[in-house]
Amino acid sequence: MTKNRTRLSVPEYVAGVLSGNRMVLSRAITLVESTLSSDQDLAEQVVNGIMGATGKAIRIGITGVPGVGKSTFIESFGQLIVQKGHRLAVLAVDPSSQRTKGSILGDKTRMETLASDQRAYIRPSPAGSTLGGVGAKTREAMLLCEAAGFDVIFIETVGVGQSEVMVKGMVDFFLLLMLAGAGDELQGIKKGIIEIADAIAINKADGDNISMAHKAKREYSNALHLFPLNKNGWMPQVKICSAVDKTGLDEIWDMILSFKEKMEDNGSFAENRSDQRITWLHEHIAYLLEHRFYNNSTVKKSLSEHLSDVRSGNLSSISVARSLVDVFIKDIENG
Amino acid sequence: MTKNRTRLSVPEYVAGVLSGNRMVLSRAITLVESTLSSDQDLAEQVVNGIMGATGKAIRIGITGVPGVGKSTFIESFGQLIVQKGHRLAVLAVDPSSQRTKGSILGDKTRMETLASDQRAYIRPSPAGSTLGGVGAKTREAMLLCEAAGFDVIFIETVGVGQSEVMVKGMVDFFLLLMLAGAGDELQGIKKGIIEIADAIAINKADGDNISMAHKAKREYSNALHLFPLNKNGWMPQVKICSAVDKTGLDEIWDMILSFKEKMEDNGSFAENRSDQRITWLHEHIAYLLEHRFYNNSTVKKSLSEHLSDVRSGNLSSISVARSLVDVFIKDIENG
Repeated sequence: MTKNRTRLSVPEYVAGVLSGNRMVLSRAITLVESTLSSDQDLAEQVVNGIMGATGKAIRIGITGVPGVGKSTFIESFGQLIVQKGHRLAVLAVDPSSQRTKGSILGDKTRMETLASDQRAYIRPSPAGSTLGGVGAKTREAMLLCEAAGFDVIFIETVGVGQSEVMVKGMVDFFLLLMLAGAGDELQGIKKGIIEIADAIAINKADGDNISMAHKAKREYSNALHLFPLNKNGWMPQVKICSAVDKTGLDEIWDMILSFKEKMEDNGSFAENRSDQRITWLHEHIAYLLEHRFYNNSTVKKSLSEHLSDVRSGNLSSISVARSLVDVFIKDIENG
Repeated sequence: MTKNRTRLSVPEYVAGVLSGNRMVLSRAITLVESTLSSDQDLAEQVVNGIMGATGKAIRIGITGVPGVGKSTFIESFGQLIVQKGHRLAVLAVDPSSQRTKGSILGDKTRMETLASDQRAYIRPSPAGSTLGGVGAKTREAMLLCEAAGFDVIFIETVGVGQSEVMVKGMVDFFLLLMLAGAGDELQGIKKGIIEIADAIAINKADGDNISMAHKAKREYSNALHLFPLNKNGWMPQVKICSAVDKTGLDEIWDMILSFKEKMEDNGSFAENRSDQRITWLHEHIAYLLEHRFYNNSTVKKSLSEHLSDVRSGNLSSISVARSLVDVFIKDIENG
């Protein structure tokens, strides 16, 4: 009862979001994030109601391990962007976070200036235990922010998990923050992240770090040239910056604008978006099927009985998979 | 009728494979590859019957784009290995190939010497339109080869698709063949492959190419040092070789043996195998669920109705996924 009283109607959500009402936007995102089945039905109608007003923002993924200065970078880079007349929404994907210790603004001192700026909207990472679920919520939150008139979206990840590949699948441009002085600092970055980056920004290029940052820039530039070209024709770039000194940020923004222009010219921008929509469809189907499978009580019981034999190699993984799926289908058939 | 007469009994398959009978091995692999449901039931019993005799080989993934000299490399490297007293099985994963134009021995002149050697067993890529299906068949074929006494397994892929990541998930060591003179030759390699390689072998380091190969070796070594360390502590290595001149092959084999020894010492070898078994279980579950989903006629109809709206962004990918999965479950419930 109480739950229902806090909900608006579909037209109220849609109209509120489209008018840029921040409170309605926040409530619509909360709806999308809800695990209640009645909320999900409502959310589906709301999101489909605003789809026509989506797609106009430039979507930027930003990742980097803890310690790279990501919050300060987003704070400084975000301010530069709103000062140029844009409206910025910052979302996060962090499947490990609980709402109460969300990665963004769990600590209220993070991005203080940006958070109080009316041209910016900052939303913590949704709660959720599985990446697929969190990713779907984040993607729909992004669409709602676009419909509310935000024309630049940041999607932040922590750079240490699977989430970067997923975020790559929902953004136009993927920026990896790194530090100079390779070695230890980099080891937290997951393999494969460097190869999916459209640009690497070497942060903290200030004070005594400047010459090291230039050296790192050369090394990464050389390494990136050994990789195969992106099919969109973009050669990933390496930039240096200091979020604290606010240097190098303009160059990064110009690079992103130049990327957007080139991709729009050669058709890759629209093609990538269209490919992403189809990929999301199939990935979310896979997520939902597996979600149902692993939450089926008959499957759970059978899986727990066989897991140690699979792990030890006594039973073939393939044949156990086959029998578990049969168990699942039979269980649905029997209601 | 004819089909059934060509089948052996489970004990006949198991005993034949375990005794190293090549004809029974081939027939058992054919059984694993069959799409007939009765064959799959039989195959499951056969594979579970030989599981106790599996796991003793060193499993090596070998990839490289067409033109890198992969067949010649496997021919020369394979001969070196059997001459050292090993028994070698060569399997292939190529989801794009049809049986009639299989990537291995479709052309009978490929690996002629190795193919006629009784210490080697060469099996073309199984037919199949989906990677998950082909991968499962290849993995079970690998287990059968191990049970038949082959103690070195090569799994060959073409280096241009998704199959490398899958092969990485079934081998102990992943070798990437490349050519000197970066640029054009490398562009067929899929992004991410370089980062999952345990070693890069720069092939065709002969004649005028030798100095270029050395230069490429230095460049790749530098680039690999920028990547995060593997959790098993292995630093990927770069070697140069010539499959035609048969140079550098001994060093590659020694490196693989040294890798195996180190991984066994630090426990990573067994841990990786155990992780792979669990991953295969979950991946094959996902594959089977999706296979059933996409082959459901009600789903097919509904999907084709919504696809263009998803592609254009008129409907949310997430909400269409949700409604399609509901359609699927209801269809099973209704028998």
